[in-house]
Amino acid sequence: MTVQAHVFQPEGIDEHDDLAAAKAAPGTTWTRVSDGTTDELEAVAETFGIHTLELDDVRNDVRNDVRPKVEQFDDHLFVLLKTATLREGETTFAEEIRTRSVGIFVGPDWLVTLSTQTIPAVGLVWDAVTRAEKRLLARGADFTAYRIVDAVVDGYFDVLDEIESDIEAVEEEVVGATGLDLLADINELRRDLLSVRRVLWPTRDAVGVLARGDLDFVDETTEKYYRDVYDHVVQLVELNETYRDLVTGARDIYLNSLSMSTNEVMKTLTVVATIVLPLTFVVGVYGMNFETMPELSWPYAYHAVMLGMAGIAGVMALYFRREGWL
Amino acid sequence: MTVQAHVFQPEGIDEHDDLAAAKAAPGTTWTRVSDGTTDELEAVAETFGIHTLELDDVRNDVRNDVRPKVEQFDDHLFVLLKTATLREGETTFAEEIRTRSVGIFVGPDWLVTLSTQTIPAVGLVWDAVTRAEKRLLARGADFTAYRIVDAVVDGYFDVLDEIESDIEAVEEEVVGATGLDLLADINELRRDLLSVRRVLWPTRDAVGVLARGDLDFVDETTEKYYRDVYDHVVQLVELNETYRDLVTGARDIYLNSLSMSTNEVMKTLTVVATIVLPLTFVVGVYGMNFETMPELSWPYAYHAVMLGMAGIAGVMALYFRREGWL
Amino acid sequence: MTVQAHVFQPEGIDEHDDLAAAKAAPGTTWTRVSDGTTDELEAVAETFGIHTLELDDVRNDVRNDVRPKVEQFDDHLFVLLKTATLREGETTFAEEIRTRSVGIFVGPDWLVTLSTQTIPAVGLVWDAVTRAEKRLLARGADFTAYRIVDAVVDGYFDVLDEIESDIEAVEEEVVGATGLDLLADINELRRDLLSVRRVLWPTRDAVGVLARGDLDFVDETTEKYYRDVYDHVVQLVELNETYRDLVTGARDIYLNSLSMSTNEVMKTLTVVATIVLPLTFVVGVYGMNFETMPELSWPYAYHAVMLGMAGIAGVMALYFRREGWL
Amino acid sequence: MTVQAHVFQPEGIDEHDDLAAAKAAPGTTWTRVSDGTTDELEAVAETFGIHTLELDDVRNDVRNDVRPKVEQFDDHLFVLLKTATLREGETTFAEEIRTRSVGIFVGPDWLVTLSTQTIPAVGLVWDAVTRAEKRLLARGADFTAYRIVDAVVDGYFDVLDEIESDIEAVEEEVVGATGLDLLADINELRRDLLSVRRVLWPTRDAVGVLARGDLDFVDETTEKYYRDVYDHVVQLVELNETYRDLVTGARDIYLNSLSMSTNEVMKTLTVVATIVLPLTFVVGVYGMNFETMPELSWPYAYHAVMLGMAGIAGVMALYFRREGWL
Amino acid sequence: MTVQAHVFQPEGIDEHDDLAAAKAAPGTTWTRVSDGTTDELEAVAETFGIHTLELDDVRNDVRNDVRPKVEQFDDHLFVLLKTATLREGETTFAEEIRTRSVGIFVGPDWLVTLSTQTIPAVGLVWDAVTRAEKRLLARGADFTAYRIVDAVVDGYFDVLDEIESDIEAVEEEVVGATGLDLLADINELRRDLLSVRRVLWPTRDAVGVLARGDLDFVDETTEKYYRDVYDHVVQLVELNETYRDLVTGARDIYLNSLSMSTNEVMKTLTVVATIVLPLTFVVGVYGMNFETMPELSWPYAYHAVMLGMAGIAGVMALYFRREGWL
Ligand SMILES: [Mg+2]
Ligand SMILES: [Mg+2]
Ligand SMILES: [Mg+2]
Ligand SMILES: [Mg+2]
Ligand SMILES: [Mg+2]
Ligand SMILES: [Mg+2]
Ligand SMILES: [Mg+2]
Ligand SMILES: [Mg+2]
Ligand SMILES: [Mg+2]
Ligand SMILES: [Mg+2]
Ligand SMILES: [Mg+2]
Ligand SMILES: [Mg+2]
Ligand SMILES: [Mg+2]
Ligand SMILES: [Mg+2]
Ligand SMILES: [Mg+2]
Ligand SMILES: [Mg+2]
Ligand SMILES: [Mg+2]
Ligand SMILES: [Mg+2]
Ligand SMILES: [Mg+2]
Ligand SMILES: [Mg+2]
Ligand SMILES: [Mg+2]
Ligand SMILES: [Mg+2]
Ligand SMILES: [Mg+2]
Ligand SMILES: [Mg+2]
Ligand SMILES: [Mg+2]
Ligand SMILES: [Mg+2]
Ligand SMILES: [Mg+2]
Ligand SMILES: [Mg+2]
Ligand SMILES: [Mg+2]
Ligand SMILES: [Mg+2]
Ligand SMILES: [Mg+2]
Repeated sequence: MTVQAHVFQPEGIDEHDDLAAAKAAPGTTWTRVSDGTTDELEAVAETFGIHTLELDDVRNDVRNDVRPKVEQFDDHLFVLLKTATLREGETTFAEEIRTRSVGIFVGPDWLVTLSTQTIPAVGLVWDAVTRAEKRLLARGADFTAYRIVDAVVDGYFDVLDEIESDIEAVEEEVVGATGLDLLADINELRRDLLSVRRVLWPTRDAVGVLARGDLDFVDETTEKYYRDVYDHVVQLVELNETYRDLVTGARDIYLNSLSMSTNEVMKTLTVVATIVLPLTFVVGVYGMNFETMPELSWPYAYHAVMLGMAGIAGVMALYFRREGWL
Repeated sequence: MTVQAHVFQPEGIDEHDDLAAAKAAPGTTWTRVSDGTTDELEAVAETFGIHTLELDDVRNDVRNDVRPKVEQFDDHLFVLLKTATLREGETTFAEEIRTRSVGIFVGPDWLVTLSTQTIPAVGLVWDAVTRAEKRLLARGADFTAYRIVDAVVDGYFDVLDEIESDIEAVEEEVVGATGLDLLADINELRRDLLSVRRVLWPTRDAVGVLARGDLDFVDETTEKYYRDVYDHVVQLVELNETYRDLVTGARDIYLNSLSMSTNEVMKTLTVVATIVLPLTFVVGVYGMNFETMPELSWPYAYHAVMLGMAGIAGVMALYFRREGWL
Repeated sequence: MTVQAHVFQPEGIDEHDDLAAAKAAPGTTWTRVSDGTTDELEAVAETFGIHTLELDDVRNDVRNDVRPKVEQFDDHLFVLLKTATLREGETTFAEEIRTRSVGIFVGPDWLVTLSTQTIPAVGLVWDAVTRAEKRLLARGADFTAYRIVDAVVDGYFDVLDEIESDIEAVEEEVVGATGLDLLADINELRRDLLSVRRVLWPTRDAVGVLARGDLDFVDETTEKYYRDVYDHVVQLVELNETYRDLVTGARDIYLNSLSMSTNEVMKTLTVVATIVLPLTFVVGVYGMNFETMPELSWPYAYHAVMLGMAGIAGVMALYFRREGWL
Repeated sequence: MTVQAHVFQPEGIDEHDDLAAAKAAPGTTWTRVSDGTTDELEAVAETFGIHTLELDDVRNDVRNDVRPKVEQFDDHLFVLLKTATLREGETTFAEEIRTRSVGIFVGPDWLVTLSTQTIPAVGLVWDAVTRAEKRLLARGADFTAYRIVDAVVDGYFDVLDEIESDIEAVEEEVVGATGLDLLADINELRRDLLSVRRVLWPTRDAVGVLARGDLDFVDETTEKYYRDVYDHVVQLVELNETYRDLVTGARDIYLNSLSMSTNEVMKTLTVVATIVLPLTFVVGVYGMNFETMPELSWPYAYHAVMLGMAGIAGVMALYFRREGWL
Repeated sequence: MTVQAHVFQPEGIDEHDDLAAAKAAPGTTWTRVSDGTTDELEAVAETFGIHTLELDDVRNDVRNDVRPKVEQFDDHLFVLLKTATLREGETTFAEEIRTRSVGIFVGPDWLVTLSTQTIPAVGLVWDAVTRAEKRLLARGADFTAYRIVDAVVDGYFDVLDEIESDIEAVEEEVVGATGLDLLADINELRRDLLSVRRVLWPTRDAVGVLARGDLDFVDETTEKYYRDVYDHVVQLVELNETYRDLVTGARDIYLNSLSMSTNEVMKTLTVVATIVLPLTFVVGVYGMNFETMPELSWPYAYHAVMLGMAGIAGVMALYFRREGWL
C-alpha cells in the first residue's frame, strides 16, 4: 500500500501526495501507512518527527514484542496498540494468538497511523472518514484517534466471545467425561486466556493513561470518550479473569470425574470379588478328595449347598445395595 | 412508563409534564424514567445536559456491560449502579445473575434517575417521596440520591442471603457424600459468587468515591451517609470473599469424602480377598488328584482342615481389626 | 444498666445523674452505657452530639454487621470496636464467633462508651477508674480511650490462644490419621481463623488511624500508646495468617496419610493375590480329570508340587520384601 | 552482667560507672546492657529518657512478641531488632525459632543497647570498639548502630544456610520416597521458613526506614551503609520466598512418588491377576465331574491344554510388556 | 586483563595508561576493568571516587549476592547489573544459573565499568566504541551506559529462549507420560524460571529508575532509550511469569496422565476379574464331589454349561463395552 494522507478542509477531504504539505495544510491531517515497508515508515517518521525507537516499536517481531503503551513526546503523543486474533492448530505458546501492532501518533492538528500489517480497526475508521462520516476529522486528531482505539478494543470482544463459546462447549462435556482430549481442550483454553491477558493488561494501562486527562494532545472534551473506552477495557480484563476462574472450575470437575470413575470401577470389582470369592471357596471345599466327608453322601447336600450359597450372595448383595455400592 | 417529574415546594410535591419548567422551578426536582424507551431517555438527557456516553452506559447490553461507577461532570454528577438477582436454571455464565443498570444524575437542585428496566430500589424511594416522607426532597438531590444508593446496596444483602442458604445446605450434605450432583452445586455456588463479585467490587469503588467527599454536588452533611453505605458495601465484599472460602472448604471436604470412599472400598476388597484366597488355595490342594496323598485317607483330615482354615481366617480377621480395616 | 457518668475532679471522681451537667463540669467526664436500651443510647447521643448513624453502628445486627473503624467528626472522634469470643457447637458460619460492638466517643474533655451488650474490656477500665487508678481520667479522655482499646485488643490474644491449642491438638493427631472427624476439626479451625480475621483486619486499620497521629482529639503524648497497641494488632494479624498456614500444613499431612493408607491397602492386596493366585492355579492343574496325566501316579509328585509351590511363594515373598511392599 | 558505659575520647576509650556523667561527657558514649534485669534497664532508661513502652518492647515475651521496628522520638531513635536461631526437637510452632530482642537507642552523641538476653551480634561490635577498632565510636553513634544492625542481619544468613542444607538433603531423598518421615521433614521446613519470615519481613521494613534517609539521628554519610544492609535483608527475604518455592516443589515430587507407587502396585496386581485368573478358569473347566466330557479321554489333551495355557499367558505377557505395565 | 581507559577526542579515540589524566582529559572517558583483581578495582575506585560499598557490590559472592540496582551518588550514578546463563547438571538451587555482576558508574563526562569476570555484553559495546561505532562515546557517558544495559538485557532473551525450548519439549512429551524423569524435567524448569526471576525482577526496578528521568547524570534525550530497555525488561518479566503458568499446566497434565493410567489399570483388572471370577465359580460347582448331582450325568450338560458360561461372558463384555471400560 502506498502512503495515504488526508486533510480535512471545510469544503471536504483533500488527498495529498506531498506529506510535508499535508502536514502544513490547515485542517486536521491523517496520514495512514498500512502494510508499510521500512522505507515508507521512515519517510513518514521523518516528516512528522517520529523517533526511530517509536518506529522499532511499531515493527513488531519476536525479540521486540512490545506491550501496548502510551508515551508523551514534546511534539506528539505516541499510542501503541495491538490487535489480537486466536489461532487454530498452534503448536507453541508464542503462536496462541496473532497480534499486530499499530502505532497511533497524535500531533496538534495531525494524526499518523503506522503499521507493517493490515489493521482492520484502522480501516474501519478510515472508511468512515472518507465515506460516511466526513466531518470526523473536524473533531480533531485526538477524537479520530479515540475512534481507532475504540475499534481496536471492540475487536477484543470478538476474541473473548470465541473463548466463551469454547468454555461453554467444554462445560457441557465435562461432567462425567474422563478423556485426555477434554483435558487438552481445557489446557488450550487456559493458554488462550493467558495470551489474551498479556495483551489486555497493558492495553488497560495505556487507555487509562489516555483517560486520566493530563496529556498534551488530548482535548478535555475527548477525555470522556477515552474514559468510555477505558470502561470497556476494564470490563474485558475482568471478563478474562472470570473466564480463568470458569476454566479452573471445569478442570476441577474433570479431575473429580476421573476420581469418581476410579471409585466406581473399584466398587464394581469389590462387589463382584466379595460375592464370588467366598462362594468359590465353598465349592472348593466340596471338591476336596478326602475319603471321609460325610456331607458328600447326603442326598440333598448339593441342593442345600447351592441354596446356602444363593442365600449368602443375596445377603451380600443387599448389604452392598444398602452401602450404595450397587 | 411515561416520564415523571416531581418538584418539591414548601407547600407540597408538584407533578410536572414540562421537563424544562420542572428543572427551572425552585425546589428540588426529581425526574424519573423507569422502563424508558430510547426517545424518553433522550428527551430527558437533552433537558438536563446528560451526555450520549452516559445514556449508553444506562442502556446495558452484552457488549456494553458497564461496571458501576461515579463520574464527575461540570454540571452534574453521574452515578451508575446495577441491581442484581440470582437466576435459576441458567446454562451459561452470562446468565448467572440478572443485572439492571440505573443511572443517577445529581445536579445542583435536581435529580434524574434513568433506567430501561424497572428498578425496585428506585421505586421504593419514589414512593417514600410521593407518599410517606414528603420532605425527603427538601434535604437535597444528593440526599435523595443517597437513599437510592442505599436501597440498591440493601438489595445485595438479599442476594448474599440466598447464597448463604445454599452454602449451608451444601455444608450439611457434604460430609460423606460423593455424588456428582453435590459437586455441581458447589461449582454453581462458586459461579454465583463470582458473578456477584463482579458487581460488588466496582460498586464498592463507586460508593467509596461518593463517600470520600471531594465531589461537586454532594454536600458535606450528606457524605457521612455515603460513608455509612460504603461500610455496608465493604461488608458485602468481605462476605463474598468469606463465602468463597467456605465454598472452597466444602469442596475440599467433598473431594476428601471421595478419596475416603475409595479407601474404604479398597479395604473391603483387600480384607475379603486376603482371607478367602489362601483358604481357596488350601481346598484346592486337597482337590488334587495325585494317587499318593496320605492325608486324604486320614479319617479326621477333613475336619482338621476345616478347623485349620477357620483358625487362619480368625487370625486374619483379628489382624485386620487391629489395623482398623474391619 | 442505667447510664453512668463520672467526672474527674482534683478531689476525686464525681458521679452524675444529669448528663448535660456532667458534660459541662470541669474535668474529664466518662459517660458509660453498657447493655443499653435504645432510649438510653439516644439520650446520651443527644447530649453529646452523636449522630444517628453512629448509634446504628453501635447497635450491631446481622444486616448492620459494621466493621471496626475510626471516624473523625467535627466535635468528637468515633471509634467502633468489636470484641470476639469463639463459640462451640455452632452450626452456621455466622455463629463461628460471637462479636459485640462498642462505640467509643472521644471529645475534648469527655469520653462516652456505648454498647447494647456487656463489654468486659470496658468494665475493666471502668473499675480501674472508679477503684484502683483514680487519676486515670486526669490523663485525658484520649488516654482513657487508649486503655479501653488496649483491653479490647488484649482480648483477641485469648481467642488466638484458644485456636493455637486446637491447632496443636490437631497436629498431634494428624500423622497417620484418616478419619472424617479430624478433617472436620481442621475445617473448623479454618473457619474460626476466617471469622477472627474478619474482625482483626479492620481493627488493625482502625488502630493504625489512631496511631498515625493526625486526629483532632488524640494528644501527641497519647499517640505513642496507640502505636504500641498497633504493634499488637499487627502481631495478631500475622499470627492469624501464620495459623492459617499451619492449618493448611496439617490438612496436607492428613490428605497424604489418606493416600498412604490407600497405598498400604493396595500393597497388602497385591502381595496376597500375587503369591496365592499362581499357587491356586497350580493346584487347579492337578485337580483336572484328564485320563492321561502322568504326574498323578508318580509317588512323590504330591510332595514335589507342595515343595515347588513353597519355593515359588518364598521367592515371591523375598521379592516383595526387597521392593519394600512387605 | 552489670551495665557498661564506654565514652570515646580522643585519647582512648573511657569506662564509666556513672551513667549521667558518661552521657554528659564529650565524645560518643555507648551504654550497653546485656542480659539485663528490670532494675538495670530502668536505671538506664531514666538516664537517657527512654519511654516505658520502649522498655516493654525490649522485654520480649509471648504476649508482647513485638516485631522489629524503628521509631523516631524527639530526642532519640529507637531500633528494635530480633536475632533468630533455629531450634531442634521443637514440638509447637512457637518454639520453631528462638528469637531474642535487642533495643538500639541512638541519640545525638550517645548509643544505648538494651537486652534481657545475651546478643552475640552486639558482643562482636562491643569487642571491636574495646579492642580492635577503637576509633569506631568516633564515626558516631549512628555508624556504630549500623555495625550492630549489620551483624544482626548477617546472623540471618546462618539460619537460612542451615535451612538450605536441610532442603538439599530432602531434595536428594525425595525422588521415589513415600515414607511419612520425609513428609514430616518437608512440613518442618515449611514451618521453619514461616518462622524466619515472621522475623525477616518486619526487619526489612525497619532497615528500609533507616536507609531511606529522613531520620533525625542518622547522618547522611551513614545512610549509604544502611542501604547496604537493606540490600542484604531484601536478599534474605527473597531467599526465604525462593526456599518456600523449593519446598513446595519437593512436596509435589513426594506426593507424585506416592501416586506413582500406587500405580505400580496396581499394575503388578493387574498383570498377575489378568494372566492367572483365566488360566485358573481353564483348569477349573477340566476339573468338572460331568460324565460326558470327551476331551478328558483324549491322550494328549492334558499336554494340549497345558500348551494352550502357556500360549495364552505368553500373549498376555507380550501385550502387557507393550503397554509398559511389565 | 589490565585496566583500559579510552577517551573520545574529536580526532579519534585515545588510549590512556594514567587514569587521573584520562579522567581529566576533555571528551568522554570510558575506563573498563574486566576480569579485574581487587587491586585494579581499588585503583580505579580511588581515581573516580567510587565508595568501598560499591566495590563490594561488584565483587559478587554467595554472602553478598547483591540484587541489580541503581544508586544515585553526589558525583556519579551507580548501576549494578547481573548477566545470567543457565547451568546444566547443577545439583543445588544456588547453581541453577550462573550470574556475573557488572558495575556501571556514570559521571558527568566519564564512564567506568568494573567486573571481576568477563562480561560479554560489555565487550560487545567496547568493540563498537573501539572499532565500528567510534563516535558512540561522543553521545555521552549516559548513552554508552544505555548501550551496555541494553546488551545485558538482550542476553536475558537468550536465557528465556532456552527455557522456552525446554518447555516445548516437555509439552510434547507430557500427554500420556507418567515417568519420574518427566516430572524431574518439569521441576527443573520451575527452578530455572525461579532463578531467572530473581535476576529479572530487580533488573526491572533498576531500569525503571533509569527510565523515570529524575537522575543526575542521565540526559533527557537518553531517557527515551532507557524507556525502550524498560519495555523489554517488562516483557521479559511477563514472559517469565507466563512460562511459569505453562509449566504449571504441563505439570497438571502430567499428574492427570498418572491418575488416568491408574484408572485404566483398574478398569483392566476389574473387567478381567468380573468376567472370569463368576465363571470360575461355576466350574467349581461342577467340580464338587457330591454323590447326588443330577446334572453330572446329563449327556449334554457339559456343552450346556460351556455355552451358558460363554453367554454370561458375552453379556458382561457387552456391558463393559457400553460403559466404556473395554
Ligand atoms: Mg499449543
Ligand atoms: Mg489456542
Ligand atoms: Mg467501544
Ligand atoms: Mg505482555
Ligand atoms: Mg460507556
Ligand atoms: Mg442457585
Ligand atoms: Mg450453569
Ligand atoms: Mg454465552
Ligand atoms: Mg447460579
Ligand atoms: Mg443500608
Ligand atoms: Mg469484578
Ligand atoms: Mg453504619
Ligand atoms: Mg466484616
Ligand atoms: Mg471450636
Ligand atoms: Mg449462616
Ligand atoms: Mg468454630
Ligand atoms: Mg496491650
Ligand atoms: Mg476482612
Ligand atoms: Mg510495645
Ligand atoms: Mg530442623
Ligand atoms: Mg504453641
Ligand atoms: Mg523447626
Ligand atoms: Mg552485612
Ligand atoms: Mg511477618
Ligand atoms: Mg552492598
Ligand atoms: Mg536445563
Ligand atoms: Mg538441587
Ligand atoms: Mg536448571
Ligand atoms: Mg534491546
Ligand atoms: Mg534476588
Ligand atoms: Mg521499543
